[in-house]
Amino acid sequence: MRALRLEKALLRSVARSLGHGLPKANHACTTASVTVVGLGPMGRAMAGTLLDHAVPVTVFNRTASRADTVVAAGARRATSAEDALYAADLVIVSLTHYPAMYDLLEPAADRLAGKVLVNLSSGTPREAERAAAWAVRHGAEFLTGGIMVPAPLVGDDTAYAFYSGPRAVLDRWSDTLGLLARPEYVGADPGLALLWYQALLDLFMTTLVGTSHAAALMKSAGVQAETFLPYASDLLA
Amino acid sequence: MRALRLEKALLRSVARSLGHGLPKANHACTTASVTVVGLGPMGRAMAGTLLDHAVPVTVFNRTASRADTVVAAGARRATSAEDALYAADLVIVSLTHYPAMYDLLEPAADRLAGKVLVNLSSGTPREAERAAAWAVRHGAEFLTGGIMVPAPLVGDDTAYAFYSGPRAVLDRWSDTLGLLARPEYVGADPGLALLWYQALLDLFMTTLVGTSHAAALMKSAGVQAETFLPYASDLLA
Repeated sequence: MRALRLEKALLRSVARSLGHGLPKANHACTTASVTVVGLGPMGRAMAGTLLDHAVPVTVFNRTASRADTVVAAGARRATSAEDALYAADLVIVSLTHYPAMYDLLEPAADRLAGKVLVNLSSGTPREAERAAAWAVRHGAEFLTGGIMVPAPLVGDDTAYAFYSGPRAVLDRWSDTLGLLARPEYVGADPGLALLWYQALLDLFMTTLVGTSHAAALMKSAGVQAETFLPYASDLLA
Repeated sequence: MRALRLEKALLRSVARSLGHGLPKANHACTTASVTVVGLGPMGRAMAGTLLDHAVPVTVFNRTASRADTVVAAGARRATSAEDALYAADLVIVSLTHYPAMYDLLEPAADRLAGKVLVNLSSGTPREAERAAAWAVRHGAEFLTGGIMVPAPLVGDDTAYAFYSGPRAVLDRWSDTLGLLARPEYVGADPGLALLWYQALLDLFMTTLVGTSHAAALMKSAGVQAETFLPYASDLLA
């Protein structure tokens, strides 16, 4: 899969240097406009990565000033939720939690019809199921996403994200979403992507606590964490 | 260090094929006789690995029949603790716990003088400190060891063991002990090797629990552990 993406990137680069794009059939929706709702570190990283790939981006955030850096980089600032939904067929949501999505988009729910809503916020599988039902009720298609890297690694080769929901919707938008992180489809049930996400965070947090406790044990004998950590990494690898 | 060991192994192999050993100065104590006390899976693996490298081995175990396989492979069976201690200058102890060492060797404590006792049993730093004091009281030198691989990997390139105690003693016997696992010296305090050992086991157990819990979460949605584990490994790597 990585090799394929690399090949596409090379093709795009060659096509650019020749002064024209690839034939339409090969890059599907990648140049369609995208709306990013929520501009915390993760939303800003996503908007920035899309802009880096010449994807037109509209951004919307409750605190408008949060958009300044990505607007300076070329994003369009939506003036309202209606405007944000009107601007693109693909709406990526990256908020603190699932309830924030209703706070921002419920006032413009009549604009949801025909849109693809991809929620990459943290949440529980149950919250994702409710959100999918809400979106479908308003005529939208919904994908649950769980991105497995911190903001600075969005767009990196190592980045991947779990997706659940209708497979056809992910397939239609995988070129665009693939710019952010390699998509890993885990099933139709909207809750699945967040179950995978939470299971891996569960392991991450447990291991973080285990590492901290072991490092504290070592520190009790005056051994610095830097001395201990290579052995811990070797154990976990 | 690995490259050095590989080179020595090649030299030994060439020397064997020429029908003679390396000059004495180059392999120090490696062909001196070694006693292994305790023949659980770890003790048997150690005795077997030493025999594989043509090191003369004497074995001693409370249940004498446990020695059968290594005796069939060329080890000498000690008839008593006195006999076991008399047979070699280097005595490797691999028992269930530290108290078992006193049970087996205390009756022959007057034979400890001049010996090097290397205890690779599991235990606490405090137990190692007491054991070192006991050995020194009887005129022996003592090294605490914590081997960081399970029995089947003894002698493997990935195997390593923490050692603490007098550095000169480890240096003197590092060629022989290095046949079992790469020695990592962590300090003079006899407890240190077991502190390192316990800190890494702490991390290992925590991560094992975290992995099991995350796999159970996934199983609740019908996802098999085999499907989940590659992502878990990738996260920890």
